[in-house]
Amino acid sequence: MIGRAAIVSIGNELLFGKTVDTNAAFLARWCSQQGLRVHTCRTVGDNEEVIAITVRELARDADLVLLTGGLGPTVDDRTRHAVAMAAGRSLEESASAWRAIQQYYRRRKPGEAVPESNRRQALIPKGAQILRNDRGTAPGLLMQVDGTWVASLPGVPVEMTAMVERLGTRLPRLITGLDAPAVAELHCAGAGESALQDHLGGLLLDDDAVQVGITVHERGFITIRAVGEAQAVERRRRALHKMLQDWLLPEPGLAESLVVALREKQWTLATVESCSGGRVAAALTAVPGASEVFCQGSIAYANAVKSREFAVPEVVLNGPGAVSEECVRALAINGRLRCGSDLCCAVSGVAGPGGGTRRTPVGTVWIAVASAQGCEARQVHLAGDREHIQQRAAQQAMLCTWQYVKTLLSTRGRRSKKTQH
Amino acid sequence: MIGRAAIVSIGNELLFGKTVDTNAAFLARWCSQQGLRVHTCRTVGDNEEVIAITVRELARDADLVLLTGGLGPTVDDRTRHAVAMAAGRSLEESASAWRAIQQYYRRRKPGEAVPESNRRQALIPKGAQILRNDRGTAPGLLMQVDGTWVASLPGVPVEMTAMVERLGTRLPRLITGLDAPAVAELHCAGAGESALQDHLGGLLLDDDAVQVGITVHERGFITIRAVGEAQAVERRRRALHKMLQDWLLPEPGLAESLVVALREKQWTLATVESCSGGRVAAALTAVPGASEVFCQGSIAYANAVKSREFAVPEVVLNGPGAVSEECVRALAINGRLRCGSDLCCAVSGVAGPGGGTRRTPVGTVWIAVASAQGCEARQVHLAGDREHIQQRAAQQAMLCTWQYVKTLLSTRGRRSKKTQH
Repeated sequence: MIGRAAIVSIGNELLFGKTVDTNAAFLARWCSQQGLRVHTCRTVGDNEEVIAITVRELARDADLVLLTGGLGPTVDDRTRHAVAMAAGRSLEESASAWRAIQQYYRRRKPGEAVPESNRRQALIPKGAQILRNDRGTAPGLLMQVDGTWVASLPGVPVEMTAMVERLGTRLPRLITGLDAPAVAELHCAGAGESALQDHLGGLLLDDDAVQVGITVHERGFITIRAVGEAQAVERRRRALHKMLQDWLLPEPGLAESLVVALREKQWTLATVESCSGGRVAAALTAVPGASEVFCQGSIAYANAVKSREFAVPEVVLNGPGAVSEECVRALAINGRLRCGSDLCCAVSGVAGPGGGTRRTPVGTVWIAVASAQGCEARQVHLAGDREHIQQRAAQQAMLCTWQYVKTLLSTRGRRSKKTQH
Repeated sequence: MIGRAAIVSIGNELLFGKTVDTNAAFLARWCSQQGLRVHTCRTVGDNEEVIAITVRELARDADLVLLTGGLGPTVDDRTRHAVAMAAGRSLEESASAWRAIQQYYRRRKPGEAVPESNRRQALIPKGAQILRNDRGTAPGLLMQVDGTWVASLPGVPVEMTAMVERLGTRLPRLITGLDAPAVAELHCAGAGESALQDHLGGLLLDDDAVQVGITVHERGFITIRAVGEAQAVERRRRALHKMLQDWLLPEPGLAESLVVALREKQWTLATVESCSGGRVAAALTAVPGASEVFCQGSIAYANAVKSREFAVPEVVLNGPGAVSEECVRALAINGRLRCGSDLCCAVSGVAGPGGGTRRTPVGTVWIAVASAQGCEARQVHLAGDREHIQQRAAQQAMLCTWQYVKTLLSTRGRRSKKTQH
């Protein structure tokens, strides 16, 4: 059976838009892995009555309601009270919860007194089970409202994620008969959503046994996901795989795919970034094990650094400028020699809002990738604000590097009978 | 008058948790600036009927309902149909919308044929106004449902944000008498939420004229916000300001505060990062004008780079190791000399999941900041997964640098009568 779940994110700061809610996505993903389909997510403020009404309404039509937020130590945190109200229970201080809070606080801040405000976090609705928090002071709550399980989790992401993982091990006992559906995912980069849609046609349509969806990730790649009955999902996956050859990524992400491919070949990569300001390095180092392939990154932000450290000739900087094919080629080729790496990727562009010219408007980005086999450069034009252009420049640099590595692998593959490496 | 708004995020990918919804937060912030209070946000799947029912339900109790997502070119994008259903109208192809889509496509991909699937995006409910999209192909829709304005915006953030800004200029004509509330914000870093709560006490309580909220940002700082009647907000702001002296940031963010402070003094900063992998550089370069103060960043990921480029002695790398006070001091001091900057910040730590030892467990991070006046080092212990530790290490490095700069400024201020700079 596929269960039904609802997610409620709680906090005035969410309604004011001061915080982006990453919890709902995490919990939704967690649910689909447990065999629960999320039919709605709601965001409400720190208002006891509104929370209680929402919980009761959603509990009517769900097997599990997950709440996050509003368990903090301050008086405006109302979730404990709201859940008690929804379940028609009173709040009581739990001695064990208060002990756990004191222990956590003393471990993290030895010698400091536990703030009295944290004591509010030990208030527990009568009959509720406590979900242990090993990353913070707020205990989670688990109790039934009208026969539906309601779990209240902290709003701080690291606390919430650790807690819900432990909840997962108890879930089969709480809701019996859950059946996790089969899921197949294909990740690709280098083609837009519309182009893929036209290319794939009917393969994106749902039928009785399988649902298909396309997700465009902000991290610069696209996922096509088939969910449903195991055999139908596998058939669809194979058909999609065949059609997507040119754009397939082996891992969910450009950085992940690059690190895995480089690791397999024991190739090292260096980066020299200007407009992307360290975002390529940050993406690469986010992948566990990146240290085996990523040896060194440089952010050559000032022109003086480009000429002093990477020998970009003055005639280039004064002529075509820092955002030019000549400049990124010099950065990639000299960066590679300087770092002693197999490959080097260089990025230089105009992120804005200032700095654009008629010849080189904001959004112009040059990328080069160098290896012992040579150097390839490419220009891209990006739209959006500064942060967006910086992010996209980093993604395009990783895409170019990925495509370069793929070509290198296939060329080497074809030549492998003649040339030994 | 304060209007009421509701936000609906649409997309199966959101319910599967494959995408984090950043649109709702952006729109909520936009609403509060327009004098609209958001009372709820909902997330629903690409289901025509569910979207239509949600729109009708929310329209009953709101002055404006904002929808994002589901306007794409694929068959599973159902928002156009759902809004038509909610308003009891039929869909028709709009000649002007189709022209705009073709123009946009040709401008972005000269020579390529417009995919036929994009034609679906020109379907408009009868009587709806078109909201121009200058960043993508999907036109937005504006129409009334039961007398409430409903705006349908694209799900792609850059397209949505540009479109809603233009909607803002029309809003006073759509909903008359909107009164934007007074908002005061104070940003601080270096103290936790509980500690601030205990320190501020009653200053965080709401009264009839002013609501106060605390937001802990993932970017490593805390915002205290007072919203309400202008004079009461200003009184509360002054009282909070007095109590928060030690932790106040001049700008909303550590990177922003650093760049502004350094710019004022015309000081330059270099960074040498190991475990944070470029995240300090990325945060600094995200601030417009960062190029005036941030000259160069290095990601010295491999030990070989630490010794070759930053002269960390072998005896340090082999003895206390790369994650040690000795190592970060060498990185900061030599990094400063090498880059010729006024200041240099160095970070080295164990981000995990591997690499931890009993003496230096995962989460151990050393930070040093060097200037001509000397060098200060600090150790922090961070919890969480790899990505979280990397982010927090970068934040702690910026916090240390900020505190170092503040001390430098106040010392220099006190000495300014004797020493001229």
